[in-house]
Amino acid sequence: MARIETFDEHPSGTLAAGDGFKLADVDPDSTPGYPGGKSDGQALLAELDGKLATLQEKLFAEAKFGGSKRILLILQAMDTAGKGGIVAHVVGAMDPQGVQLKAFKAPTDEEKSYDFLWRIEKEVPAAGMVGVFDRSHYEDVLIHRVRGWASPQEIERRYVAINEFEARLTDTGTKIVKVMLNISRDEQKARLLARLDDPSKHWKYSSGDLKERAFWDDYMAAYQAAFDNTHTEVAPWHVVPANKKWYARIAVQQLLLQAMEDLNLEWPAAEFDVALERSLVERT
Amino acid sequence: MARIETFDEHPSGTLAAGDGFKLADVDPDSTPGYPGGKSDGQALLAELDGKLATLQEKLFAEAKFGGSKRILLILQAMDTAGKGGIVAHVVGAMDPQGVQLKAFKAPTDEEKSYDFLWRIEKEVPAAGMVGVFDRSHYEDVLIHRVRGWASPQEIERRYVAINEFEARLTDTGTKIVKVMLNISRDEQKARLLARLDDPSKHWKYSSGDLKERAFWDDYMAAYQAAFDNTHTEVAPWHVVPANKKWYARIAVQQLLLQAMEDLNLEWPAAEFDVALERSLVERT
Repeated sequence: MARIETFDEHPSGTLAAGDGFKLADVDPDSTPGYPGGKSDGQALLAELDGKLATLQEKLFAEAKFGGSKRILLILQAMDTAGKGGIVAHVVGAMDPQGVQLKAFKAPTDEEKSYDFLWRIEKEVPAAGMVGVFDRSHYEDVLIHRVRGWASPQEIERRYVAINEFEARLTDTGTKIVKVMLNISRDEQKARLLARLDDPSKHWKYSSGDLKERAFWDDYMAAYQAAFDNTHTEVAPWHVVPANKKWYARIAVQQLLLQAMEDLNLEWPAAEFDVALERSLVERT
Repeated sequence: MARIETFDEHPSGTLAAGDGFKLADVDPDSTPGYPGGKSDGQALLAELDGKLATLQEKLFAEAKFGGSKRILLILQAMDTAGKGGIVAHVVGAMDPQGVQLKAFKAPTDEEKSYDFLWRIEKEVPAAGMVGVFDRSHYEDVLIHRVRGWASPQEIERRYVAINEFEARLTDTGTKIVKVMLNISRDEQKARLLARLDDPSKHWKYSSGDLKERAFWDDYMAAYQAAFDNTHTEVAPWHVVPANKKWYARIAVQQLLLQAMEDLNLEWPAAEFDVALERSLVERT
Protein backbone atom coordinates (compact mmCIF):
# COMPACT_ATOMS: atom_id res chain seq x y z
CA MET A 1 0.00 0.00 0.00
CA ALA A 2 1.35 3.42 -0.90
CA ARG A 3 2.37 5.67 1.96
CA ILE A 4 -0.24 8.37 2.59
CA GLU A 5 1.09 11.92 2.30
CA THR A 6 0.99 13.76 5.62
CA PHE A 7 1.52 17.40 6.55
CA ASP A 8 5.10 18.79 6.52
CA GLU A 9 4.08 21.59 8.85
CA HIS A 10 1.10 21.48 11.16
CA PRO A 11 -1.80 23.78 10.24
CA SER A 12 -2.11 24.86 13.89
CA GLY A 13 1.05 26.85 13.27
CA THR A 14 1.02 27.76 9.60
CA LEU A 15 -2.62 28.83 9.47
CA ALA A 16 -2.76 30.80 12.71
CA ALA A 17 -3.90 34.41 12.28
CA GLY A 18 -1.55 35.89 14.86
CA ASP A 19 0.44 39.13 15.09
CA GLY A 20 1.05 40.68 11.71
CA PHE A 21 -1.33 38.32 9.91
CA LYS A 22 -2.82 39.84 6.78
CA LEU A 23 -5.78 38.09 5.22
CA ALA A 24 -5.03 39.80 1.91
CA ASP A 25 -1.68 37.98 1.76
CA VAL A 26 -3.21 34.50 1.88
CA ASP A 27 -3.80 32.65 -1.38
CA PRO A 28 -7.13 30.78 -1.12
CA ASP A 29 -5.83 28.33 -3.73
CA SER A 30 -2.81 27.34 -1.65
CA THR A 31 -2.35 24.21 0.45
CA PRO A 32 0.05 25.33 3.21
CA GLY A 33 2.10 22.59 4.80
CA TYR A 34 0.68 19.84 2.62
CA PRO A 35 2.82 18.46 -0.20
CA GLY A 36 0.20 16.12 -1.66
CA GLY A 37 -2.65 16.59 -4.10
CA LYS A 38 -6.39 15.92 -4.03
CA SER A 39 -6.27 12.12 -4.00
CA ASP A 40 -3.59 12.16 -1.28
CA GLY A 41 -5.71 14.53 0.76
CA GLN A 42 -8.83 12.41 0.40
CA ALA A 43 -6.88 9.33 1.47
CA LEU A 44 -5.47 11.17 4.49
CA LEU A 45 -8.95 12.35 5.52
CA ALA A 46 -10.30 8.80 5.41
CA GLU A 47 -7.20 7.43 7.14
CA LEU A 48 -7.53 9.77 10.12
CA ASP A 49 -11.32 9.48 10.54
CA GLY A 50 -10.88 6.57 12.92
CA LYS A 51 -8.25 8.37 15.00
CA LEU A 52 -10.51 11.38 15.39
CA ALA A 53 -13.46 9.16 16.34
CA THR A 54 -11.39 7.34 18.98
CA LEU A 55 -10.17 10.59 20.55
CA GLN A 56 -13.73 11.89 20.58
CA GLU A 57 -14.89 8.73 22.34
CA LYS A 58 -12.20 9.23 25.00
CA LEU A 59 -13.34 12.81 25.48
CA PHE A 60 -16.92 11.60 25.89
CA ALA A 61 -15.86 8.80 28.24
CA GLU A 62 -13.87 11.16 30.50
CA ALA A 63 -16.94 13.32 31.05
CA LYS A 64 -18.94 10.27 32.16
CA PHE A 65 -16.48 10.03 35.04
CA GLY A 66 -16.58 13.70 35.97
CA GLY A 67 -14.25 15.17 33.35
CA SER A 68 -14.95 18.73 32.26
CA LYS A 69 -13.00 18.84 29.00
CA ARG A 70 -14.79 19.67 25.77
CA ILE A 71 -14.10 21.12 22.31
CA LEU A 72 -15.73 24.04 20.55
CA LEU A 73 -15.15 24.35 16.82
CA ILE A 74 -16.29 27.70 15.47
CA LEU A 75 -16.77 27.91 11.69
CA GLN A 76 -17.05 31.23 9.91
CA ALA A 77 -16.92 31.92 6.21
CA MET A 78 -18.47 33.65 3.23
CA ASP A 79 -21.37 31.76 1.62
CA THR A 80 -20.43 28.62 -0.36
CA ALA A 81 -17.01 28.42 1.32
CA GLY A 82 -17.72 24.90 2.53
CA LYS A 83 -18.84 25.04 6.17
CA GLY A 84 -21.44 22.41 5.37
CA GLY A 85 -18.83 20.15 3.84
CA ILE A 86 -16.67 20.42 6.95
CA VAL A 87 -19.65 19.42 9.08
CA ALA A 88 -20.62 16.52 6.80
CA HIS A 89 -17.15 15.14 6.06
CA VAL A 90 -14.95 16.03 9.04
CA VAL A 91 -17.37 16.36 11.96
CA GLY A 92 -19.48 13.60 10.40
CA ALA A 93 -16.74 11.05 11.07
CA MET A 94 -17.34 11.34 14.80
CA ASP A 95 -20.11 9.56 16.68
CA PRO A 96 -23.27 11.73 16.59
CA GLN A 97 -23.70 11.03 20.31
CA GLY A 98 -20.60 13.11 21.04
CA VAL A 99 -21.32 16.01 18.73
CA GLN A 100 -23.36 19.08 19.61
CA LEU A 101 -23.96 21.03 16.41
CA LYS A 102 -25.62 24.43 16.24
CA ALA A 103 -26.23 26.39 13.05
CA PHE A 104 -26.87 30.00 14.00
CA LYS A 105 -29.35 31.76 11.73
CA ALA A 106 -30.49 35.37 11.82
CA PRO A 107 -31.55 36.04 15.43
CA THR A 108 -35.24 35.98 16.38
CA ASP A 109 -36.93 39.04 17.85
CA GLU A 110 -36.59 37.51 21.30
CA GLU A 111 -32.88 36.84 20.80
CA LYS A 112 -32.37 40.40 19.58
CA SER A 113 -33.85 41.72 22.81
CA TYR A 114 -30.87 40.32 24.75
CA ASP A 115 -27.12 40.84 24.56
CA PHE A 116 -25.68 39.06 21.50
CA LEU A 117 -24.03 36.39 23.67
CA TRP A 118 -27.32 35.32 25.30
CA ARG A 119 -28.29 32.87 22.58
CA ILE A 120 -24.69 31.68 22.23
CA GLU A 121 -24.28 30.76 25.89
CA LYS A 122 -27.24 28.38 25.63
CA GLU A 123 -25.48 26.38 22.90
CA VAL A 124 -21.99 25.94 24.34
CA PRO A 125 -20.93 22.28 24.45
CA ALA A 126 -21.60 20.14 27.51
CA ALA A 127 -18.67 18.36 29.17
CA GLY A 128 -17.28 15.63 26.93
CA MET A 129 -18.88 16.97 23.77
CA VAL A 130 -17.48 18.35 20.55
CA GLY A 131 -19.49 21.51 20.00
CA VAL A 132 -19.64 22.88 16.48
CA PHE A 133 -20.91 26.37 15.68
CA ASP A 134 -21.87 26.85 12.03
CA ARG A 135 -21.70 30.64 12.20
CA SER A 136 -21.51 32.10 15.69
CA HIS A 137 -21.21 35.22 17.82
CA TYR A 138 -18.75 36.44 15.19
CA GLU A 139 -21.69 37.35 12.96
CA ASP A 140 -22.26 40.15 15.45
CA VAL A 141 -18.91 41.71 14.54
CA LEU A 142 -18.97 40.73 10.85
CA ILE A 143 -22.32 41.35 9.16
CA HIS A 144 -23.15 43.88 11.88
CA ARG A 145 -19.99 45.83 11.09
CA VAL A 146 -20.36 45.51 7.32
CA ARG A 147 -23.99 46.62 7.30
CA GLY A 148 -23.61 49.20 10.02
CA TRP A 149 -26.16 47.49 12.27
CA ALA A 150 -23.98 48.31 15.25
CA SER A 151 -21.91 51.42 15.94
CA PRO A 152 -18.10 51.25 15.91
CA GLN A 153 -18.16 51.65 19.70
CA GLU A 154 -20.57 48.74 20.04
CA ILE A 155 -18.39 46.56 17.80
CA GLU A 156 -15.41 47.39 20.02
CA ARG A 157 -17.45 46.43 23.09
CA ARG A 158 -18.30 43.14 21.44
CA TYR A 159 -14.65 42.26 20.72
CA VAL A 160 -13.89 42.67 24.41
CA ALA A 161 -16.98 40.73 25.43
CA ILE A 162 -16.07 37.90 23.04
CA ASN A 163 -12.57 37.62 24.44
CA GLU A 164 -13.88 37.52 28.00
CA PHE A 165 -16.54 34.97 27.02
CA GLU A 166 -14.07 32.70 25.26
CA ALA A 167 -11.56 32.98 28.13
CA ARG A 168 -14.32 31.93 30.54
CA LEU A 169 -15.18 28.91 28.38
CA THR A 170 -11.50 28.01 28.28
CA ASP A 171 -11.18 28.37 32.06
CA THR A 172 -13.97 25.85 32.51
CA GLY A 173 -12.59 23.12 30.27
CA THR A 174 -13.31 24.15 26.69
CA LYS A 175 -10.66 23.94 23.99
CA ILE A 176 -11.69 26.47 21.35
CA VAL A 177 -10.79 26.07 17.66
CA LYS A 178 -11.74 29.05 15.49
CA VAL A 179 -11.71 28.56 11.73
CA MET A 180 -12.32 30.97 8.89
CA LEU A 181 -12.69 29.17 5.57
CA ASN A 182 -11.08 31.47 3.07
CA ILE A 183 -12.36 31.32 -0.51
CA SER A 184 -11.68 33.80 -3.27
CA ARG A 185 -14.29 36.05 -4.81
CA ASP A 186 -13.93 34.20 -8.13
CA GLU A 187 -14.34 30.82 -6.49
CA GLN A 188 -17.56 31.97 -4.84
CA LYS A 189 -18.87 33.06 -8.21
CA ALA A 190 -18.08 29.65 -9.71
CA ARG A 191 -19.80 27.89 -6.81
CA LEU A 192 -22.91 30.06 -7.00
CA LEU A 193 -23.17 29.32 -10.72
CA ALA A 194 -22.69 25.61 -10.04
CA ARG A 195 -25.58 25.70 -7.60
CA LEU A 196 -27.78 27.36 -10.19
CA ASP A 197 -26.81 24.79 -12.82
CA ASP A 198 -27.77 21.78 -10.69
CA PRO A 199 -31.48 21.40 -9.75
CA SER A 200 -30.50 19.20 -6.78
CA LYS A 201 -28.57 22.21 -5.42
CA HIS A 202 -31.18 24.92 -6.00
CA TRP A 203 -32.33 24.62 -2.40
CA LYS A 204 -28.88 25.79 -1.28
CA TYR A 205 -29.08 28.96 -3.33
CA SER A 206 -30.46 32.16 -1.91
CA SER A 207 -30.58 35.49 -3.69
CA GLY A 208 -29.51 36.90 -0.32
CA ASP A 209 -26.07 35.38 -0.98
CA LEU A 210 -25.64 37.79 -3.85
CA LYS A 211 -26.46 40.74 -1.62
CA GLU A 212 -23.68 39.82 0.83
CA ARG A 213 -21.33 39.15 -2.08
CA ALA A 214 -21.65 42.79 -3.08
CA PHE A 215 -19.99 43.69 0.23
CA TRP A 216 -17.00 41.35 -0.35
CA ASP A 217 -14.25 43.85 0.42
CA ASP A 218 -16.06 45.10 3.50
CA TYR A 219 -16.35 41.54 4.74
CA MET A 220 -12.66 40.93 4.24
CA ALA A 221 -11.95 44.08 6.28
CA ALA A 222 -14.36 42.92 8.98
CA TYR A 223 -12.65 39.52 9.14
CA GLN A 224 -9.25 41.19 9.38
CA ALA A 225 -10.53 43.36 12.23
CA ALA A 226 -11.97 40.30 13.96
CA PHE A 227 -8.62 38.51 13.75
CA ASP A 228 -6.79 41.62 14.99
CA ASN A 229 -9.11 41.91 17.98
CA THR A 230 -10.03 38.35 18.93
CA HIS A 231 -7.06 36.15 18.05
CA THR A 232 -5.95 35.22 21.56
CA GLU A 233 -3.63 32.63 23.01
CA VAL A 234 -6.48 30.58 24.41
CA ALA A 235 -8.72 30.98 21.38
CA PRO A 236 -6.61 31.49 18.27
CA TRP A 237 -8.00 32.00 14.78
CA HIS A 238 -6.97 29.80 11.87
CA VAL A 239 -7.51 30.96 8.33
CA VAL A 240 -7.89 27.92 6.11
CA PRO A 241 -7.46 28.34 2.34
CA ALA A 242 -10.67 26.81 1.02
CA ASN A 243 -10.73 27.05 -2.75
CA LYS A 244 -9.70 23.40 -2.65
CA LYS A 245 -12.37 21.69 -0.57
CA TRP A 246 -10.21 18.63 0.04
CA TYR A 247 -7.48 20.78 1.56
CA ALA A 248 -9.86 22.69 3.85
CA ARG A 249 -11.19 19.38 5.16
CA ILE A 250 -7.83 17.84 6.02
CA ALA A 251 -6.64 21.11 7.53
CA VAL A 252 -9.66 21.35 9.85
CA GLN A 253 -9.34 17.66 10.68
CA GLN A 254 -5.72 18.33 11.72
CA LEU A 255 -6.83 21.26 13.89
CA LEU A 256 -9.42 19.08 15.62
CA LEU A 257 -6.92 16.25 16.11
CA GLN A 258 -4.42 18.70 17.61
CA ALA A 259 -7.07 20.15 19.93
CA MET A 260 -7.94 16.64 21.13
CA GLU A 261 -4.28 15.77 21.64
CA ASP A 262 -3.70 18.97 23.60
CA LEU A 263 -6.35 17.72 26.04
CA ASN A 264 -4.23 14.64 26.97
CA LEU A 265 -7.24 12.35 26.96
CA GLU A 266 -7.18 8.97 28.70
CA TRP A 267 -9.69 6.19 29.08
CA PRO A 268 -11.13 6.76 32.55
CA ALA A 269 -10.19 4.23 35.23
CA ALA A 270 -13.05 2.07 36.48
CA GLU A 271 -14.63 3.40 39.66
CA PHE A 272 -15.85 -0.09 40.45
CA ASP A 273 -14.10 -3.33 41.40
CA VAL A 274 -13.68 -5.04 38.03
CA ALA A 275 -13.10 -8.52 39.46
CA LEU A 276 -16.10 -8.24 41.76
CA GLU A 277 -18.39 -7.02 39.00
CA ARG A 278 -17.11 -9.82 36.79
CA SER A 279 -18.04 -12.44 39.34
CA LEU A 280 -21.45 -10.84 39.83
CA VAL A 281 -22.13 -10.95 36.08
CA GLU A 282 -20.91 -14.54 35.87
CA ARG A 283 -23.43 -15.54 38.51
CA THR A 284 -26.45 -14.14 36.61
CA MET B 1 -17.16 -6.86 -8.36
CA ALA B 2 -19.28 -9.42 -6.52
CA ARG B 3 -22.96 -8.70 -6.26
CA ILE B 4 -23.91 -7.49 -2.78
CA GLU B 5 -26.50 -9.66 -1.04
CA THR B 6 -29.77 -7.79 -0.48
CA PHE B 7 -32.86 -8.61 1.58
CA ASP B 8 -35.26 -11.27 0.26
CA GLU B 9 -38.07 -9.88 2.37
CA HIS B 10 -38.20 -6.34 3.65
CA PRO B 11 -37.77 -5.92 7.43
CA SER B 12 -40.67 -3.45 7.49
CA GLY B 13 -42.89 -6.51 7.02
CA THR B 14 -41.04 -9.41 8.59
CA LEU B 15 -40.02 -7.57 11.76
CA ALA B 16 -43.30 -5.78 12.48
CA ALA B 17 -44.75 -6.53 15.92
CA GLY B 18 -48.37 -6.61 14.82
CA ASP B 19 -51.41 -8.71 15.78
CA GLY B 20 -50.41 -11.98 17.34
CA PHE B 21 -46.76 -11.05 17.63
CA LYS B 22 -45.01 -12.87 20.46
CA LEU B 23 -41.60 -11.60 21.52
CA ALA B 24 -40.84 -14.99 23.07
CA ASP B 25 -41.08 -16.60 19.62
CA VAL B 26 -38.32 -14.46 18.09
CA ASP B 27 -34.79 -15.84 17.93
CA PRO B 28 -32.36 -12.99 18.70
CA ASP B 29 -29.70 -14.88 16.74
CA SER B 30 -31.76 -14.95 13.55
CA THR B 31 -31.39 -12.73 10.49
CA PRO B 32 -34.93 -12.60 9.06
CA GLY B 33 -35.18 -11.86 5.37
CA TYR B 34 -31.42 -11.69 4.84
CA PRO B 35 -29.67 -14.60 3.16
CA GLY B 36 -26.11 -13.27 3.54
CA GLY B 37 -23.57 -13.40 6.33
CA LYS B 38 -21.57 -10.81 8.24
CA SER B 39 -19.29 -9.66 5.44
CA ASP B 40 -22.27 -9.40 3.06
CA GLY B 41 -24.13 -7.38 5.65
CA GLN B 42 -21.23 -5.00 6.24
CA ALA B 43 -20.87 -4.47 2.49
CA LEU B 44 -24.59 -3.77 2.17
CA LEU B 45 -24.48 -1.24 5.01
CA ALA B 46 -21.61 0.64 3.37
CA GLU B 47 -23.25 0.40 -0.05
CA LEU B 48 -26.49 2.01 1.12
CA ASP B 49 -24.94 4.75 3.27
CA GLY B 50 -24.88 7.10 0.31
CA LYS B 51 -28.50 6.39 -0.62
CA LEU B 52 -29.63 7.13 2.92
CA ALA B 53 -27.58 10.33 3.01
CA THR B 54 -29.09 11.52 -0.29
CA LEU B 55 -32.65 10.86 0.87
CA GLN B 56 -31.91 12.67 4.11
CA GLU B 57 -30.60 15.66 2.17
CA LYS B 58 -33.81 15.73 0.11
CA LEU B 59 -35.86 15.66 3.32
CA PHE B 60 -33.82 18.56 4.69
CA ALA B 61 -34.08 20.47 1.40
CA GLU B 62 -37.88 20.10 1.24
CA ALA B 63 -38.24 21.71 4.65
CA LYS B 64 -36.21 24.73 3.50
CA PHE B 65 -39.01 25.33 1.01
CA GLY B 66 -41.84 24.90 3.47
CA GLY B 67 -42.08 21.11 3.66
CA SER B 68 -43.26 19.62 6.96
CA LYS B 69 -42.04 16.05 6.57
CA ARG B 70 -39.66 14.57 9.12
CA ILE B 71 -38.60 11.22 10.56
CA LEU B 72 -38.55 10.04 14.15
CA LEU B 73 -36.57 6.89 14.90
CA ILE B 74 -37.27 5.56 18.39
CA LEU B 75 -34.72 3.09 19.78
CA GLN B 76 -35.51 0.93 22.78
CA ALA B 77 -33.56 -2.03 24.11
CA MET B 78 -32.03 -3.75 27.09
CA ASP B 79 -28.53 -2.50 28.01
CA THR B 80 -25.71 -3.51 25.64
CA ALA B 81 -28.16 -4.35 22.84
CA GLY B 82 -26.47 -1.93 20.48
CA LYS B 83 -28.43 1.33 20.42
CA GLY B 84 -25.16 3.21 20.43
CA GLY B 85 -23.89 1.20 17.47
CA ILE B 86 -27.03 2.01 15.49
CA VAL B 87 -26.50 5.70 16.20
CA ALA B 88 -22.79 5.60 15.30
CA HIS B 89 -22.97 3.35 12.25
CA VAL B 90 -26.44 3.84 10.71
CA VAL B 91 -27.48 7.32 11.81
CA GLY B 92 -23.82 8.40 11.57
CA ALA B 93 -23.88 8.00 7.80
CA MET B 94 -26.24 10.94 7.50
CA ASP B 95 -25.15 14.57 7.55
CA PRO B 96 -25.05 15.78 11.20
CA GLN B 97 -26.86 18.92 10.06
CA GLY B 98 -29.97 16.89 9.36
CA VAL B 99 -29.96 14.73 12.47
CA GLN B 100 -31.54 15.65 15.79
CA LEU B 101 -30.40 13.13 18.37
CA LYS B 102 -31.68 12.94 21.92
CA ALA B 103 -30.54 10.42 24.51
CA PHE B 104 -33.12 10.34 27.29
CA LYS B 105 -31.65 9.71 30.74
CA ALA B 106 -33.45 9.32 34.06
CA PRO B 107 -35.74 12.35 34.34
CA THR B 108 -34.72 15.34 36.46
CA ASP B 109 -36.83 16.46 39.39
CA GLU B 110 -38.26 19.23 37.22
CA GLU B 111 -39.16 16.78 34.46
CA LYS B 112 -40.78 14.45 36.98
CA SER B 113 -43.07 17.25 38.11
CA TYR B 114 -44.76 17.25 34.68
CA ASP B 115 -46.60 14.63 32.65
CA PHE B 116 -44.15 12.11 31.19
CA LEU B 117 -44.62 13.49 27.66
CA TRP B 118 -43.59 17.03 28.64
CA ARG B 119 -39.87 16.47 28.18
CA ILE B 120 -40.47 14.35 25.07
CA GLU B 121 -42.48 17.02 23.24
CA LYS B 122 -39.54 19.43 23.52
CA GLU B 123 -37.31 17.02 21.62
CA VAL B 124 -39.48 16.03 18.66
CA PRO B 125 -37.75 16.61 15.32
CA ALA B 126 -38.12 19.89 13.46
CA ALA B 127 -39.38 19.83 9.87
CA GLY B 128 -36.83 18.25 7.54
CA MET B 129 -34.91 16.54 10.33
CA VAL B 130 -34.27 12.92 11.19
CA GLY B 131 -35.00 12.77 14.91
CA VAL B 132 -33.48 9.90 16.86
CA PHE B 133 -34.56 9.00 20.39
CA ASP B 134 -32.05 6.83 22.26
CA ARG B 135 -34.60 5.64 24.84
CA SER B 136 -37.84 7.56 24.89
CA HIS B 137 -41.30 7.92 26.43
CA TYR B 138 -41.43 4.12 26.34
CA GLU B 139 -39.25 4.05 29.46
CA ASP B 140 -42.37 5.31 31.22
CA VAL B 141 -44.20 2.08 30.39
CA LEU B 142 -41.17 -0.23 30.62
CA ILE B 143 -38.98 0.44 33.66
CA HIS B 144 -41.95 2.11 35.36
CA ARG B 145 -44.02 -1.03 34.90
CA VAL B 146 -41.21 -3.41 35.85
CA ARG B 147 -40.29 -1.51 38.99
CA GLY B 148 -43.84 -0.64 39.95
CA TRP B 149 -43.13 3.11 39.81
CA ALA B 150 -46.54 3.63 38.26
CA SER B 151 -49.82 1.86 38.97
CA PRO B 152 -51.36 -0.47 36.36
CA GLN B 153 -54.05 2.15 35.76
CA GLU B 154 -51.44 4.82 35.17
CA ILE B 155 -49.57 2.55 32.74
CA GLU B 156 -52.82 2.03 30.84
CA ARG B 157 -53.36 5.80 30.72
CA ARG B 158 -49.86 6.20 29.31
CA TYR B 159 -50.43 3.68 26.49
CA VAL B 160 -53.44 5.73 25.38
CA ALA B 161 -51.54 9.00 25.76
CA ILE B 162 -48.63 7.63 23.72
CA ASN B 163 -50.90 6.53 20.89
CA GLU B 164 -52.57 9.94 20.80
CA PHE B 165 -49.20 11.70 20.94
CA GLU B 166 -47.72 9.62 18.14
CA ALA B 167 -50.85 10.04 16.00
CA ARG B 168 -50.58 13.80 16.45
CA LEU B 169 -46.94 13.76 15.37
CA THR B 170 -47.90 11.69 12.35
CA ASP B 171 -50.74 14.08 11.47
CA THR B 172 -48.24 16.93 11.38
CA GLY B 173 -45.70 15.35 9.07
CA THR B 174 -43.69 12.89 11.15
CA LYS B 175 -42.94 9.38 9.93
CA ILE B 176 -42.34 7.32 13.06
CA VAL B 177 -40.08 4.26 13.09
CA LYS B 178 -40.09 2.34 16.38
CA VAL B 179 -37.36 -0.22 16.94
CA MET B 180 -36.74 -2.67 19.77
CA LEU B 181 -33.29 -4.24 19.53
CA ASN B 182 -33.78 -7.77 20.74
CA ILE B 183 -30.80 -9.49 22.35
CA SER B 184 -30.84 -12.68 24.36
CA ARG B 185 -30.09 -12.88 28.05
CA ASP B 186 -26.94 -14.89 27.30
CA GLU B 187 -25.73 -12.39 24.75
CA GLN B 188 -26.12 -9.56 27.26
CA LYS B 189 -24.02 -11.52 29.73
CA ALA B 190 -21.28 -11.99 27.14
CA ARG B 191 -21.32 -8.30 26.28
CA LEU B 192 -21.18 -7.18 29.91
CA LEU B 193 -18.18 -9.44 30.46
CA ALA B 194 -16.53 -8.08 27.33
CA ARG B 195 -16.93 -4.55 28.67
CA LEU B 196 -15.31 -5.58 31.92
CA ASP B 197 -12.43 -7.25 30.10
CA ASP B 198 -11.53 -4.17 28.04
CA PRO B 199 -10.30 -1.08 29.94
CA SER B 200 -11.29 1.14 27.00
CA LYS B 201 -14.89 -0.03 27.57
CA HIS B 202 -15.06 0.31 31.35
CA TRP B 203 -16.72 3.69 31.00
CA LYS B 204 -19.67 1.99 29.32
CA TYR B 205 -20.21 -0.37 32.24
CA SER B 206 -22.52 0.48 35.08
CA SER B 207 -23.36 -1.77 37.99
CA GLY B 208 -26.91 -0.48 37.51
CA ASP B 209 -27.03 -2.58 34.32
CA LEU B 210 -26.83 -5.69 36.47
CA LYS B 211 -29.76 -4.52 38.57
CA GLU B 212 -32.01 -4.19 35.50
CA ARG B 213 -30.72 -7.53 34.20
CA ALA B 214 -32.19 -9.20 37.28
CA PHE B 215 -35.63 -8.15 36.02
CA TRP B 216 -35.09 -9.66 32.55
CA ASP B 217 -38.35 -11.61 32.34
CA ASP B 218 -40.36 -8.69 33.67
CA TYR B 219 -38.82 -6.48 31.01
CA MET B 220 -39.73 -8.95 28.28
CA ALA B 221 -43.33 -8.93 29.58
CA ALA B 222 -43.32 -5.12 29.66
CA TYR B 223 -42.04 -4.97 26.06
CA GLN B 224 -44.72 -7.45 24.98
CA ALA B 225 -47.38 -5.30 26.67
CA ALA B 226 -45.97 -2.20 24.99
CA PHE B 227 -46.20 -3.86 21.57
CA ASP B 228 -49.74 -5.08 22.31
CA ASN B 229 -50.86 -1.60 23.30
CA THR B 230 -48.85 0.78 21.12
CA HIS B 231 -48.22 -0.99 17.82
CA THR B 232 -50.41 1.14 15.57
CA GLU B 233 -50.77 1.55 11.84
CA VAL B 234 -49.16 4.98 11.88
CA ALA B 235 -46.45 4.06 14.39
CA PRO B 236 -45.67 0.36 14.12
CA TRP B 237 -43.09 -1.42 16.24
CA HIS B 238 -40.29 -3.45 14.71
CA VAL B 239 -38.46 -6.04 16.77
CA VAL B 240 -34.96 -6.44 15.37
CA PRO B 241 -32.95 -9.53 16.30
CA ALA B 242 -29.76 -8.00 17.64
CA ASN B 243 -27.40 -10.73 18.77
CA LYS B 244 -25.65 -10.15 15.45
CA LYS B 245 -24.79 -6.45 15.43
CA TRP B 246 -24.23 -6.36 11.69
CA TYR B 247 -27.77 -7.67 11.09
CA ALA B 248 -29.39 -5.17 13.44
CA ARG B 249 -27.62 -2.34 11.62
CA ILE B 250 -28.70 -3.32 8.11
CA ALA B 251 -32.24 -4.00 9.33
CA VAL B 252 -32.57 -0.55 10.90
CA GLN B 253 -30.96 1.01 7.82
CA GLN B 254 -33.64 -0.69 5.70
CA LEU B 255 -36.39 0.61 7.99
CA LEU B 256 -35.03 4.15 7.69
CA LEU B 257 -34.69 3.86 3.91
CA GLN B 258 -38.28 2.61 3.68
CA ALA B 259 -39.54 5.45 5.85
CA MET B 260 -37.76 7.96 3.61
CA GLU B 261 -39.14 6.34 0.48
CA ASP B 262 -42.66 6.38 1.92
CA LEU B 263 -42.33 10.16 2.15
CA ASN B 264 -41.94 10.49 -1.66
CA LEU B 265 -39.21 13.09 -1.35
CA GLU B 266 -38.28 15.36 -4.25
CA TRP B 267 -35.71 18.09 -4.70
CA PRO B 268 -37.70 21.28 -4.22
CA ALA B 269 -38.27 23.41 -7.31
CA ALA B 270 -36.51 26.77 -7.31
CA GLU B 271 -38.70 29.62 -6.12
CA PHE B 272 -36.51 32.06 -8.01
CA ASP B 273 -35.89 32.68 -11.71
CA VAL B 274 -32.79 30.55 -12.37
CA ALA B 275 -31.82 32.33 -15.62
CA LEU B 276 -32.20 35.75 -14.02
CA GLU B 277 -30.14 34.79 -10.96
CA ARG B 278 -27.53 33.30 -13.26
CA SER B 279 -27.16 36.55 -15.16
CA LEU B 280 -26.98 38.50 -11.89
CA VAL B 281 -24.18 36.27 -10.61
CA GLU B 282 -22.33 36.51 -13.94
CA ARG B 283 -22.34 40.27 -13.65
CA THR B 284 -20.64 40.33 -10.22
